[in-house]
Amino acid sequence: MPLPELELIQRIRRAAARGHTNPSHGIGDDCAVLDIPHGHEVLITTDFSLEGVHFRREWHPPDSVGHRCLARGLSDIAAMGGIPRTAFLSLALPADLPQRWADEFIRGLLRLARRYSVTLAGGDTAQSANGILADIIVVGSIPKGKAILRSGAHPGDLIYASGTLGASVATLEKLRAGKKLHPHMHSRHFYPDPRIALARYLSEHKLASAMIDTSDGLSTDLRHICEESRVGAIVDAAALPITRDGNALQLALHGGEDYELLFTTPPNKKLPTEIASVPITRIGAITSGKQIKLQSPDGKLQPLPARGWQHLA
Amino acid sequence: MPLPELELIQRIRRAAARGHTNPSHGIGDDCAVLDIPHGHEVLITTDFSLEGVHFRREWHPPDSVGHRCLARGLSDIAAMGGIPRTAFLSLALPADLPQRWADEFIRGLLRLARRYSVTLAGGDTAQSANGILADIIVVGSIPKGKAILRSGAHPGDLIYASGTLGASVATLEKLRAGKKLHPHMHSRHFYPDPRIALARYLSEHKLASAMIDTSDGLSTDLRHICEESRVGAIVDAAALPITRDGNALQLALHGGEDYELLFTTPPNKKLPTEIASVPITRIGAITSGKQIKLQSPDGKLQPLPARGWQHLA
Repeated sequence: MPLPELELIQRIRRAAARGHTNPSHGIGDDCAVLDIPHGHEVLITTDFSLEGVHFRREWHPPDSVGHRCLARGLSDIAAMGGIPRTAFLSLALPADLPQRWADEFIRGLLRLARRYSVTLAGGDTAQSANGILADIIVVGSIPKGKAILRSGAHPGDLIYASGTLGASVATLEKLRAGKKLHPHMHSRHFYPDPRIALARYLSEHKLASAMIDTSDGLSTDLRHICEESRVGAIVDAAALPITRDGNALQLALHGGEDYELLFTTPPNKKLPTEIASVPITRIGAITSGKQIKLQSPDGKLQPLPARGWQHLA
Repeated sequence: MPLPELELIQRIRRAAARGHTNPSHGIGDDCAVLDIPHGHEVLITTDFSLEGVHFRREWHPPDSVGHRCLARGLSDIAAMGGIPRTAFLSLALPADLPQRWADEFIRGLLRLARRYSVTLAGGDTAQSANGILADIIVVGSIPKGKAILRSGAHPGDLIYASGTLGASVATLEKLRAGKKLHPHMHSRHFYPDPRIALARYLSEHKLASAMIDTSDGLSTDLRHICEESRVGAIVDAAALPITRDGNALQLALHGGEDYELLFTTPPNKKLPTEIASVPITRIGAITSGKQIKLQSPDGKLQPLPARGWQHLA
C-alpha cells in the first residue's frame, strides 16, 4: 500500500504551522520562498539521517531521531557562526511504519526547531523500500563576509573545544553492550544541543579564526581545519575535556557526533572559560607544517591519526 | 568495507570545479555560503531520487539517474518562474556499487547543471545499507514578490501546458513490458529538459497567474493549483498535447514525471504558440467552484479524479 504522502505532508504542515511563523510562502508550492536580510549571505547545509547508519530504531526513540536529524544541520550552521532560519525535510518511510513513529519523529524535530526559532518550510516525502531515510536541509544566514571558515587558522593560534568530548560515543558503546538507557539521562547522545549561541558570540566578537563542529570526532575534524588552513597542530591530551568513562581519551579523540565546536583563536584574544553557559577549554595550538600531534602528559609527542568516525558502521 | 567518503567528496569536488564557477565558498566547509542578488528572494526545493521508487538500475543508465535527479529540482525552480543557481547533493551509495556508476551519475548530473550555469556547492555522503539514495536540493532566486505560486489562479483564467504530456510514463510502460530502449531515443523520460527558459519568459512578461510542473501528472498537479487557488477547472480532452501511444489520453491525464509546465493566464493575455522553442497549448479554463472536470470531444463533462502518480509503485 502506498504511503499516504499527501496526508503526511498535511500533518507536517499542520505541526510546523503551530507555534511559530512560517517563511514568506511555506509547504504547498513547488519551492519555498525565503527572504534573507539585506547584507547577509545564505548558509546551506544538508545531512542524512539513515536507519542503520546514523540511528537504530531499537536504540533511538523516534523523537530523539527527529531531534538528532535537525541537530546535525543546526550544528553545521553554528560551525560557520551563522543564524539558523529555515529547515527542509526529505523523509522516506517504510509502508509498514506506525504513524505514531512519524508523529514522534516530527515532534522531536519541531521541538528543537522552535528552540531556535527555525521554521520547517518544505521538503519531500516518499515511500522507502528499506528503512527510514531522512535528509535535513538547514538554511541560515550571516552578515556578509563574517562566516567562520575552516581555512582561517594560522600557526600560533590556540585551539579550543566547547563542552565535553566523547560523551555521545560513550553512550553508543553502552547501547552496543546491550544496556538499557533512559534517553534523557544521556542527552548528549540522544538530544544534543547545537552550540548556536556560543557560535554567535564567537562570530560577533570576532574571536574565532577557524571553526568546525565535532561531528566526525576530534582527530578527523581537527584534520579538516588543518588541511583547509594548510597548518599543523599539537593537541594536549591532559587538557581535553573528557567524560569519566573507561577509555575516555580514545572516545574524546576519535568518537563522533558530539556536536561541540572546535575552533582556533589568535593568541592575543582573551576567551572566557564559559560562553553562553557552555564551558570552553584550550586543548592545543596550531603549528606550521602539516602534522597533527598528540602531546602526552609526560611531554612526548606522537602523531594523531584521523580515524574517520563511521557512525554505526 | 566502508565507502571511501572522503574520496567521493574529492571526486565530486573536482568534477564540480571543472568548467564553471563555484559559489563564494564551496564543498569543504560545514555550510556553503551563497550570495543572493540584492532585491531577490531565495527559492529552495528538495527532491528524493530513490532506487526502486524513482529509478531502477536495470532500466536507467547512471548518467540518466543523475540527470533526472537534478532535473526534478530544476523543474521546481522553473515552476516558480525562478533562476536556478546552486545545487546540493546528498548521496548514499551501497558499499559494493562500482565506482564507475557513481562517476557516471555525477557526470549526468553535472552536464545538466552546466547547461543552466548551476553550481554543485555541497551535500552529504553516506554508505547505504540498501540501494542508491539521492536527495537533490536546488537553490534559486527570483526578484522579490515575483514568484509564481500555485495559489494565483482565478475563475476565467485559461489553462496551458508546455510540450507534450504522457511521454515519460509511455516510456516507462515500454520498460515495464521488457522492451530494450535506447535512452537517447526516449529523452523525455531519460533526460527531461526542465522548462527554465519558458518559465523565465512567463515570469518576466507577467503572463502566468499560477504555475506548477507536471511531476505528479496533469490530474494531480492541476488539483494542486485548484486547491491552493480555491477554484475549479475544465480540461478539454481533445486539446491535450498527447503522445501517439495507444492509451495516450490516460497517460497524459495521469502519468507523471513529464516536467512540463502547467500554468494559468488571465483571459486578456495573448500567448504565443511557442516560447523558448517549447510549444504551448491551451488545454482548458479555470472555473469557480471546486470541481475539476474533463470535457470529452462530444461536449460531455465528467469528473477528473486526481490519480496521484506513484513513480514505480
